Amino acid sequence: MIQITFPDGSKRDYENGINGLQIAEQISPKLAKEVYSATVNGETWDLTRAINADATLKLNKWDDQEGKHAFWHSSAHLLAEALETLYPCIKFGIGPAIENGFYYDVDPGEGNIITDSDLPVVEKRMKELASKNMNYNRQDICKEDALKFFTQKGDEYKTELIGELTDGTITLYQQGGFTDLCRGPHLPSTEPLKAVKLLSVAGAYWRGNEKRKMLTRIYGISFPKQKMLDEYLVLLEEAKKRDHRKIGKELELFTFSPKVGMGLPLWMPKGSDIRQNLITFLTSVLKKRGYRIVTTPHIGNVNLYKTSGHFEKYGADSFQPISTPQEGEQFMLKPMNCPHHCEIYNAVPHSYKDLPLRMAEFGTVYRYEQSGELHGLTRVRSFTQDDAHIFCRHDQLREEFKSIIDLILYVLRILNFKEYTAQISLRDKKDRQKYIGSEENWERAERDIIEAAAEKDLNTVVAYGEAAFYGPKLDFMIKDAIGRKWQLGTIQVDYNLPERFDLEYNGSDNQKHRPVMIHRTIFGSMERFVAVLIENSAGKFPLWLAPEKAVILPISEKYNDYAEKVLEILNNSDICALLDERSEKIGKKIRDNELKKIPYLLVIGEKEAETGMVSIRKQGEGDKGTMKIEEFVKFIHEEMNKEIAVKA
Amino acid sequence: MIQITFPDGSKRDYENGINGLQIAEQISPKLAKEVYSATVNGETWDLTRAINADATLKLNKWDDQEGKHAFWHSSAHLLAEALETLYPCIKFGIGPAIENGFYYDVDPGEGNIITDSDLPVVEKRMKELASKNMNYNRQDICKEDALKFFTQKGDEYKTELIGELTDGTITLYQQGGFTDLCRGPHLPSTEPLKAVKLLSVAGAYWRGNEKRKMLTRIYGISFPKQKMLDEYLVLLEEAKKRDHRKIGKELELFTFSPKVGMGLPLWMPKGSDIRQNLITFLTSVLKKRGYRIVTTPHIGNVNLYKTSGHFEKYGADSFQPISTPQEGEQFMLKPMNCPHHCEIYNAVPHSYKDLPLRMAEFGTVYRYEQSGELHGLTRVRSFTQDDAHIFCRHDQLREEFKSIIDLILYVLRILNFKEYTAQISLRDKKDRQKYIGSEENWERAERDIIEAAAEKDLNTVVAYGEAAFYGPKLDFMIKDAIGRKWQLGTIQVDYNLPERFDLEYNGSDNQKHRPVMIHRTIFGSMERFVAVLIENSAGKFPLWLAPEKAVILPISEKYNDYAEKVLEILNNSDICALLDERSEKIGKKIRDNELKKIPYLLVIGEKEAETGMVSIRKQGEGDKGTMKIEEFVKFIHEEMNKEIAVKA
Repeated sequence: MIQITFPDGSKRDYENGINGLQIAEQISPKLAKEVYSATVNGETWDLTRAINADATLKLNKWDDQEGKHAFWHSSAHLLAEALETLYPCIKFGIGPAIENGFYYDVDPGEGNIITDSDLPVVEKRMKELASKNMNYNRQDICKEDALKFFTQKGDEYKTELIGELTDGTITLYQQGGFTDLCRGPHLPSTEPLKAVKLLSVAGAYWRGNEKRKMLTRIYGISFPKQKMLDEYLVLLEEAKKRDHRKIGKELELFTFSPKVGMGLPLWMPKGSDIRQNLITFLTSVLKKRGYRIVTTPHIGNVNLYKTSGHFEKYGADSFQPISTPQEGEQFMLKPMNCPHHCEIYNAVPHSYKDLPLRMAEFGTVYRYEQSGELHGLTRVRSFTQDDAHIFCRHDQLREEFKSIIDLILYVLRILNFKEYTAQISLRDKKDRQKYIGSEENWERAERDIIEAAAEKDLNTVVAYGEAAFYGPKLDFMIKDAIGRKWQLGTIQVDYNLPERFDLEYNGSDNQKHRPVMIHRTIFGSMERFVAVLIENSAGKFPLWLAPEKAVILPISEKYNDYAEKVLEILNNSDICALLDERSEKIGKKIRDNELKKIPYLLVIGEKEAETGMVSIRKQGEGDKGTMKIEEFVKFIHEEMNKEIAVKA
Repeated sequence: MIQITFPDGSKRDYENGINGLQIAEQISPKLAKEVYSATVNGETWDLTRAINADATLKLNKWDDQEGKHAFWHSSAHLLAEALETLYPCIKFGIGPAIENGFYYDVDPGEGNIITDSDLPVVEKRMKELASKNMNYNRQDICKEDALKFFTQKGDEYKTELIGELTDGTITLYQQGGFTDLCRGPHLPSTEPLKAVKLLSVAGAYWRGNEKRKMLTRIYGISFPKQKMLDEYLVLLEEAKKRDHRKIGKELELFTFSPKVGMGLPLWMPKGSDIRQNLITFLTSVLKKRGYRIVTTPHIGNVNLYKTSGHFEKYGADSFQPISTPQEGEQFMLKPMNCPHHCEIYNAVPHSYKDLPLRMAEFGTVYRYEQSGELHGLTRVRSFTQDDAHIFCRHDQLREEFKSIIDLILYVLRILNFKEYTAQISLRDKKDRQKYIGSEENWERAERDIIEAAAEKDLNTVVAYGEAAFYGPKLDFMIKDAIGRKWQLGTIQVDYNLPERFDLEYNGSDNQKHRPVMIHRTIFGSMERFVAVLIENSAGKFPLWLAPEKAVILPISEKYNDYAEKVLEILNNSDICALLDERSEKIGKKIRDNELKKIPYLLVIGEKEAETGMVSIRKQGEGDKGTMKIEEFVKFIHEEMNKEIAVKA
């Protein structure tokens, strides 16, 4: 008999050699249908793999990353099998599960090409094969046999991969007529793969190397139920419409230029205004909460990053150092603001009474990313952190955590993000050698975070072993209007930089003490957050964030003079407005300007010009009556104030 | 006979061999006493040097840079003579005239040191020597003889310099017992050197090379009248008190860190707030005047600067390119914002109706300066330009110039700078080959600038030959509270970048046209301008610019609770305030906080706490009565609005 320990701590004895699927069946036949892989002693296995000793066991369902992963990985093999029946000369690269779905990189063989229009046929074949309920069979194989098998098959990509593997660690998986080099794990059979969709075809260099052959990458996704797939495809359609790159171009919010460089956003006026409206709002909130704003340069001497440790750790993968034409100095583009802030801390002596010192900066940082990794505003090479560093005493940590949680929840509320989760990342329960800082400080900080989160009723999960080597942290994740999750800000304790920068304060005992440092961001990156806002709102921003609050539409050129007067009044009242003086019919003007998503459209004709009024249309909602222009000014300011007023 | 042409164009004949001094004497004996050098055919000469052919002649007085230069250069030689009589073993490096005064770098000889305390004796000796009215005598000398002379004298620094000169170009100057290697020009005699002051002693490496010997640099200044010297010394004292580096440190506005790098300012919270208050104010002004704000990264691919021409022209003297760890890209820190703005212009097509397009950015740029050239915030390696580029049609140039002049005068008025001058820089009257852009466009632009300045009643001087190769410009200079002049913003026409970036708009004729570009700044650099503001105000900022508007001073700890409530009300009303909770006597609290130059001091005791009032003291002015706290909030906002309201 062997003893199996379940995640809730309960233990049960089973016969030696039992597998995860059998255990699931013994618990309930329903469960057995819902599990896709088993995590045995922390390692994810096939459900059908025999367990031969006492072990911990977690059965992974669809909602577990490990369950989904096996589901999609098995789908990739099914795709390969289908392709092989349709393209007998096909050769296979790699076919992993990814964040959403799976892909397979293939070489269709001399003279063959696979395009989007071929996907329905492949998809149909996948469904035919899946319905045969074939098992996925795992087989250990020696390197020589593996090489022989794929050489005979003519799969040169697989033989290249095998050549780099260590003998004794190689496994194959076979289902139906298809065998693949694979570590697994996989589903027991193709039976659950009922709802499959192939999404697109792209080119991908073999092993990501532009000097190797360009293979064909086929993306797909699959679900255990057709309804789930349908919902996903609707979401995908909706996401495409909301793609911030598409809306950013349509609304002229930002652009990229090859001459300036990839991943370096150029904020056009309207995008720059949205970004600045956020910064202005946050600055005012921060000042009320005792933060002070600093401004630091975008470069620092390499010595700064040698002191901080960043140079040693990330230097080789960063934008390379900047030399001076004389004097032999070397600078780095700053990848983060903390070393600069430590130097500001060190510019004057501090007393225990001055702490906590909350130092904030909207600091633009530069991090090298490979061009293939770049994506709109969400993955860039330059971004502006809404950064802050709090220098405090150890006994102030919990209050600071609570006040930062408060701040983040407040800001998310203003921005109408109602659903969020938070992850508390603590030390590994066993391996404690790798963490710097005293046991006492760590224990206290971990307790402080847990209790601060509890006091603030935060919806949290705790992840052991996910803390940074220099301190525990708390990360926020929000759900957007179409249910997608976005990782946002973080609160991070740091025992490392205070040591490295020799930060000190004078205690009540008149001795020197080391402060603790908290790194925190609310949005993380202004660029990424604006992308989230665009995708969340589909480009229809709340009034206070909108770059232009109103557009004035004279119904004929006769009223252009009055329209210009209205424009001047609005602009002089700090209400950014536009004027559409084109000699188009008013219906067309309204339609065109509705597309620009400007919150208010002010129609102006004879009556309005005579009475000093404006006729108001709200974007997407239509007519809202008339107002004196001065009333409208007041109304707009009141509406904006309402939007950013404290929300319950 | 030779013909002499004077600056006003008048011509007179003189005997061949006449000199500048003799011509001055013929004009008037008074003039002869006031001139210090002669500019002959554009080259500055001794007044006593004979003119042997037709020539243009300008006689340089104190107010001419060339006159002052000769005066101070002769003073440096007088200093050297005095030193030689006092320190017989002394050796001489170089002794030039500088922006304000002169210096001499000397090696006092084995075992000798010269300190500030020795200066009065040297100064006295200078005056004794000057009173002998000795002539400065120029002598052409061959290289061999020059080397022999200084070798015999033992002046190794001079022989090193002579070694690098071309034979036939070497001259010596001798007065009294002292002879120096020198190009000149000098005064006729020591007679005008009546008022001399030696200011300080510093160390300076020979030839600026830290591997060479450290010499002793003695700084001095001199004037033709004692009264002028006295006034200068008062100004110098006043300037020292107002030195922005001193006040910046005292008020904790900014700091520099060797680890971050020289010339890279770290704006501490209070300095950052002042800078941001200026930016917020300017942004609001700009938006009302039809500018749109953009935001661009601090680096650009080298190709951007190859297109703009900056790479070829300045690349070698700039911060060197930044390589990427992969993909072989190269970036430059941006030395200016215009190329990025051109790329934003090019992101969408433009119609003639869209112009002028006014694109502004508070863009931080990076320019390499040698460490020896750096000075506080006025000479830095990173600074933020209050930059804008206006893309317009040629027929819009004059209106744009007028509107920019208006804007600059408006902003200077708000900031209480009442005295300013402007220089219009036009093409060289003769050499027109070096300018790019058509004759027609240049003529029109030059006329537009001149007439726009005239229409705006601007106090201008016209400088021919001072235009950039790419367009004419208009520069502003202001006078501060103690009479010093500061170069500020500029308006600059550019025909070059529109060509290089292939900028276009669609004309009313439906053809492609090239817009003209105007570069303009108001302050030039936020860093430099904040330095000017600090020196102008001696750190006592107007309320709207002050980082903290008020400090709350409870007269005893009993009133700390009420004081904290007042603090909260102020901060929640966007009025940044401090609280001094120290258990000091109220008199000391007032004195300490007066020094911080916070505009309002709010004293709080029993009466105030009971009635919800604050007792108000204005910094530097004393008691201003009591107010309800809500009234005080209103009062502060009204005061700030008054300060930035339009001034007549």
